[in-house]
Amino acid sequence: MSSTAPSVNASSESAVLATARRARTAAADLAPLPRTARDAALAAVADALVARAAEVVEANAADVGRARANGTSAGIVDRLTLTEERIAAIAADVRDVIALPDPVGEVVRGSTLPNGLELRQVRVPLGVVGIIYEARPNVTVDAAALCLKSGNAVLLRGSSSAHASNTALVAVLRDAVASVGLPADAVQLVPGESRDSVHELMTARGLVDVLIPRGGASLIETVVTESTVPVIETGTGNCHVYVDAAADLERAVEILVDSKADRPSVCNAAETVLVHEAVADRFLPMALAALTSAGVTVHGDESWRRAGAEAGIEVAAVTDEDWAVEYLSYDIAAGVVPDLDAAVAHIRRWTSGHTEAIVTGDTAAARRFVSRMDSAAVMVNASTRFTDGGQFGFGAEIGISTQKLHARGPMGLPELTSTTYVVTGEGHTRG
Amino acid sequence: MSSTAPSVNASSESAVLATARRARTAAADLAPLPRTARDAALAAVADALVARAAEVVEANAADVGRARANGTSAGIVDRLTLTEERIAAIAADVRDVIALPDPVGEVVRGSTLPNGLELRQVRVPLGVVGIIYEARPNVTVDAAALCLKSGNAVLLRGSSSAHASNTALVAVLRDAVASVGLPADAVQLVPGESRDSVHELMTARGLVDVLIPRGGASLIETVVTESTVPVIETGTGNCHVYVDAAADLERAVEILVDSKADRPSVCNAAETVLVHEAVADRFLPMALAALTSAGVTVHGDESWRRAGAEAGIEVAAVTDEDWAVEYLSYDIAAGVVPDLDAAVAHIRRWTSGHTEAIVTGDTAAARRFVSRMDSAAVMVNASTRFTDGGQFGFGAEIGISTQKLHARGPMGLPELTSTTYVVTGEGHTRG
Repeated sequence: MSSTAPSVNASSESAVLATARRARTAAADLAPLPRTARDAALAAVADALVARAAEVVEANAADVGRARANGTSAGIVDRLTLTEERIAAIAADVRDVIALPDPVGEVVRGSTLPNGLELRQVRVPLGVVGIIYEARPNVTVDAAALCLKSGNAVLLRGSSSAHASNTALVAVLRDAVASVGLPADAVQLVPGESRDSVHELMTARGLVDVLIPRGGASLIETVVTESTVPVIETGTGNCHVYVDAAADLERAVEILVDSKADRPSVCNAAETVLVHEAVADRFLPMALAALTSAGVTVHGDESWRRAGAEAGIEVAAVTDEDWAVEYLSYDIAAGVVPDLDAAVAHIRRWTSGHTEAIVTGDTAAARRFVSRMDSAAVMVNASTRFTDGGQFGFGAEIGISTQKLHARGPMGLPELTSTTYVVTGEGHTRG
Repeated sequence: MSSTAPSVNASSESAVLATARRARTAAADLAPLPRTARDAALAAVADALVARAAEVVEANAADVGRARANGTSAGIVDRLTLTEERIAAIAADVRDVIALPDPVGEVVRGSTLPNGLELRQVRVPLGVVGIIYEARPNVTVDAAALCLKSGNAVLLRGSSSAHASNTALVAVLRDAVASVGLPADAVQLVPGESRDSVHELMTARGLVDVLIPRGGASLIETVVTESTVPVIETGTGNCHVYVDAAADLERAVEILVDSKADRPSVCNAAETVLVHEAVADRFLPMALAALTSAGVTVHGDESWRRAGAEAGIEVAAVTDEDWAVEYLSYDIAAGVVPDLDAAVAHIRRWTSGHTEAIVTGDTAAARRFVSRMDSAAVMVNASTRFTDGGQFGFGAEIGISTQKLHARGPMGLPELTSTTYVVTGEGHTRG
């Protein structure tokens, strides 16, 4: 709240707080602007990215070179690398954002009260959105585009490994925004590469309206526990697949393999499979064969290890660490449960609240499972991989919230807004 | 999130964490229950409050006696006091909650995706709601009733001055809830009266889903800054009334006096009035006379002090402390501004983000003011006192949020819920 904002005192103020204060001023200027002005800024951004791709690629080369010199893995280096083609694709994504519906100004609720007062609850921008993220420089543009579209000023804090790339991208973004008469400070990089600068961002109450950490569990845990600015938790996905007694087992194998192995490095990939004991004898051999041929290592309980031994497939002994961890790799924890309620209890104990799936042909079992989960998404006879803003038809995604307040699950443009009650009368008083 | 919940270890676990863990178990049992079960519990609560009013009054007498002995002000003692009549009124409020629409299970958004997946975003209870509040024992019942209605377990942390009353009330509530087969642990008092127990509640991540502090600015600031559990800020109201150049001045006086003096002790009372210089000469004498006869002391700028001197009315010199403070008393800060934008700048600088009002006959001025405010509610030609769940027709109010995430403004039953995406397919995979 403004009342808790540090008072203006440029001389004593840190670079981070000064940046946040400029963002706050920019946010105040952005909020009243119509869609046309915000869309014009996004079009200018897309054009500028293509026009100035060469300078971005050059800056990126410095980051890539440093990463290679530090012996960074090829996968990470690839995620870090920008080419003119990749920049053109990022610009195309920005143009897609222009086409999305405007969340700002939507009347969420409205009525005329008995006393004649006209009540409207209207969507408004959050104000200043801080994004703390790792590697991927494309996030710099994606996040800025979604914040601009929703009328927010954005403070970007990328990883130091992409600092040169992010600096070049933000320079392009700021020039483009300013070229159509919007405040350049609507898009800023948080100065400083030290943890101190992150801590200042996390404690800039009254200047920053929300922080969205995007990255590994440790980054998110740090932000959630240290921040005094409101935070939206994203991304940690210890997702489960439960194969019920009434499951179509062929279908269950397909859903399990897709959930685990389609793309193991993402948060909606499955990390644990639980199987009803009534179908374990038939399902485990099928699942072990399919998972193994997909390159997945199974960390199983006694039942799974026995099935593995019979099939000549190595199954590691599962531990509490396995139940708890988000592998993000070709590994899966596997157990057999006596019934659905035991699966529910296991999942509630270990889940990160992202996505759980049940495979069953029994409507009562599906209903019981869905009503007892405590996660952002529950899949019935579908892969956990479908928890995604694009798959849900949101057109864009700033992240996937695993918390319960404000936003839960894939976050699109409406999740980057708040609301204000506008009440219109003709001299109404209560006394 | 469950994954961050301290693992079960009853021996080493504190009384507060053990209480929170029981609440979490109760919440899991409550979540799948239909409305009829939750409404039956509320009916049992209302009946029990009336039937056992005598024992509550007796317990309350101990708190009242201690308060009097400590020289507590008559006003506070009155707010603390429970009589059989007041308990009957509290029971009647519980019956009103039964009649409210059920927020749980509402489908907020739904569609069939191009691939045939059926997507539904469904309202679900938040889980475990912690309420930290001061004095008023009626809040104990109100908060518990709203949480039960919305399928949440509640952890109540009242002030030590009402400990005997709250203990008696919670005993009645728990027995009533259990009498219809619901878990008594859906309603619990947080053990311990020390600040340590509050701190434990504020850091019980994974066990408590949200904390709602209700009370003074210092309590709220403490919770917001020390809590690692998500918090919804409520109640601090540094509300402003701006009298525009195009205002109907008679109407402006009525709105100003109602906003300030109808009930100065509540958060939607006005604390500052700003007047466009074009109407200052005419409006200030009218306002000074009306405010003075309403018993209000004006803390004004040079213009207001000059007007006061001419009218023979004492006007104190306004300071930055006056602009910042929530008086909650018969005092108001008063200034004259050169134009609407100066009023906007002043309000954005000092507001707590609760409610601001403009009095004007100029639609362009009203539109400009509304679009530039950054508060939960903006009144056009109406008193700030209308920002209230009851006035808005919500039927109940757990508090008034002054933050932007999750809930902003008066919070009714829907604000005590989260959502889950339920996705139904027939073996859908992505790979």
